[in-house]
Amino acid sequence: MRISRRAEAIQESPIRKLAPLAAAARARGVRIYNLNIGQPDVATPPEFLRAVCAFSDPVLAYGPSDGLPELKAAMAEYFGRYEIPLRGEEILITNGGSEAILFAFNVVADDGEEIIIPEPFYTNYNGYAEMANLKIVPVRTHAEEGFHLPPDEVLEAAVTPRTRAVLICSPNNPTGTVLTWEELERLAAFAARHDLFLIADEVYKEFTYDGRRHRSVLELAGLWDRVIVVDSVSKRFSACGARIGAVISRNREVMAACLKFGQARLCPPTLEQLGAIAAYRLPESYFDGVRAEYEHRRDVLYEALTADPGILLRKPRGAFYMIVKLAGVADADHFTRWLLSDFELGGETVMLAPANGFYATPGAGADEVRIAYVLDADKLRRAAEILLAALARYQGERSTITYGA
Amino acid sequence: MRISRRAEAIQESPIRKLAPLAAAARARGVRIYNLNIGQPDVATPPEFLRAVCAFSDPVLAYGPSDGLPELKAAMAEYFGRYEIPLRGEEILITNGGSEAILFAFNVVADDGEEIIIPEPFYTNYNGYAEMANLKIVPVRTHAEEGFHLPPDEVLEAAVTPRTRAVLICSPNNPTGTVLTWEELERLAAFAARHDLFLIADEVYKEFTYDGRRHRSVLELAGLWDRVIVVDSVSKRFSACGARIGAVISRNREVMAACLKFGQARLCPPTLEQLGAIAAYRLPESYFDGVRAEYEHRRDVLYEALTADPGILLRKPRGAFYMIVKLAGVADADHFTRWLLSDFELGGETVMLAPANGFYATPGAGADEVRIAYVLDADKLRRAAEILLAALARYQGERSTITYGA
Repeated sequence: MRISRRAEAIQESPIRKLAPLAAAARARGVRIYNLNIGQPDVATPPEFLRAVCAFSDPVLAYGPSDGLPELKAAMAEYFGRYEIPLRGEEILITNGGSEAILFAFNVVADDGEEIIIPEPFYTNYNGYAEMANLKIVPVRTHAEEGFHLPPDEVLEAAVTPRTRAVLICSPNNPTGTVLTWEELERLAAFAARHDLFLIADEVYKEFTYDGRRHRSVLELAGLWDRVIVVDSVSKRFSACGARIGAVISRNREVMAACLKFGQARLCPPTLEQLGAIAAYRLPESYFDGVRAEYEHRRDVLYEALTADPGILLRKPRGAFYMIVKLAGVADADHFTRWLLSDFELGGETVMLAPANGFYATPGAGADEVRIAYVLDADKLRRAAEILLAALARYQGERSTITYGA
Repeated sequence: MRISRRAEAIQESPIRKLAPLAAAARARGVRIYNLNIGQPDVATPPEFLRAVCAFSDPVLAYGPSDGLPELKAAMAEYFGRYEIPLRGEEILITNGGSEAILFAFNVVADDGEEIIIPEPFYTNYNGYAEMANLKIVPVRTHAEEGFHLPPDEVLEAAVTPRTRAVLICSPNNPTGTVLTWEELERLAAFAARHDLFLIADEVYKEFTYDGRRHRSVLELAGLWDRVIVVDSVSKRFSACGARIGAVISRNREVMAACLKFGQARLCPPTLEQLGAIAAYRLPESYFDGVRAEYEHRRDVLYEALTADPGILLRKPRGAFYMIVKLAGVADADHFTRWLLSDFELGGETVMLAPANGFYATPGAGADEVRIAYVLDADKLRRAAEILLAALARYQGERSTITYGA
């Protein structure tokens, strides 16, 4: 009796795998700044819980497999604000954006087929690729180029007869990069040229800075049938624990298939959908404050980190992550563990996600970490101070290692 | 561009596929008795929503991937009442029992491997088998034998080199059968003999009648490593919309793998877990009233239906379903559609689930329906009256069909 190959193969979350070391550090009395996980500290709108508690049915019953019609209507209206017309039947509510990814993967590809994803990419795609037995084919993007799309030749070289889709995430986790409209059009042409689906994870769409506006793949003319959007309220309304996401497509065959997958798991959680309805009805001004806060945090962290010439970092334009290249750190996996096990500054340390888990190419990202700027500006300043001090000490310690010892 | 083979292959829910016809009937003003879906009308304990609304954190944040420790502790204490000792690390909270099935399938088997399931079985296993690309190998059970396990020879004949697990559901959906302790011991020996996992869906464990007590596979001595239990609060606390389930195993490798799958989808919903904690802390007496109510309903429906000699039905001992064989109905799929489209009695009709969707063997169950007795006794009496009248008329209409016309 053995567990399955896929159960053995699925990676431990690079975002969560350091948790035991963090617990041990906390037990030693060390305070940890958590920059490892995209858990915003922004308050969930009080309207959310209020709507949940207004629930007055005697029975908390199954809802529709595709989600509550009121929620789909509220979402459609919300997308309408961005001039993206959607109908209820083009939206299916899921257990978080995670399940939307699972459904999208299962709909576009069969066992052994391939999905092209620019790397580094959101690491949890790996888990679903493993469950669906798909192969993720990475196309490399680079810190030096702000993690923008590689030229067409690189995309072309990744295509095989088994390629079924290309997946993008913009604004991007883990890089913070926002793809330009020209990049989206280039992807559209690429998808059409090779008859591929275009899956877009747009869960950070409200989080763009420097006056930039996010453009959705749903705006691409003539590509309606190919586009599948992964959506979620987790970051939008700082409601990560709600597990309310959506898969959006104008392709009726895709939506019919998603509904069948949805029926297999009956329905998404009812109470949290009620909260989401209230959140979607918040005025657009709700985001102004949140966006300004994140933009400020990005600026604070960017300035603090780039003060150190050993840190390579292009200013990210969206989401609330950055991938940072660390001089003198050959193995960021070791460095992030060391931060929790062997380092403290005045009883404090920082927790980061090693970036290698965000790459599919073996060895890639070994000298990089992902930082989530989900703490307030004062805490970010202090966290940056700790990180720079740690880096100096780590580099010092490394340089005294006797080779061959 | 085409959708995947698995997306095309996954079945439409036989429980939900008649919904459009029901909507049309309602639009014509026909009242429908819903016996097609296991949605209890029993009130959710008010403690559930009260606990949800006591949530006072400013941020509805991600919870642990394996669920809130307080919920796992409350569940362990609950199982302790049944003399089943469990530790927190042997429980992983899931998005409903559905996700527990998905994780269990992915952990025990790889693409193309097989899971033996007595049929008829809960139809939603099919969806997850399709997603995990597993093959369900049915072993037939029969209405005439109360849907109890077939003899060992039949089980043995289903084993191939690709068999990885056997799955049972007891108390059973859709048959209401409760496996005996002797049957569990026989399954244990079978699993050990062929080195298989034993997956048990025990989400109806509180619902046993006639003084019978449910015995869990977790009580089987010497089988701890092989056993994986699928659990849920949906029926237990009439909280189907909560989507809180669990996978339970004492096999550490299995639980470590489930945790990795769990990390890929981050966490189960936080608010609904808080409700579940309160529900698990209800006194055992909570179930006495619920159990008595369902037992009464079963008796009412059993008596009303068996008054018609054209209905074959063994008295079910648990859950709240029965599979009923209908004389004169060759195609229950057609009959259940006809009930919604072409029949009414005093402006009322009944909605049933055709049983063929609960069988993997082509053609099996064609003359059977599943009935869920989730309405109160008066409504069940009326629903039975309608069904028997419908059956008489349907049989009459069929007999007047001119063959060859």
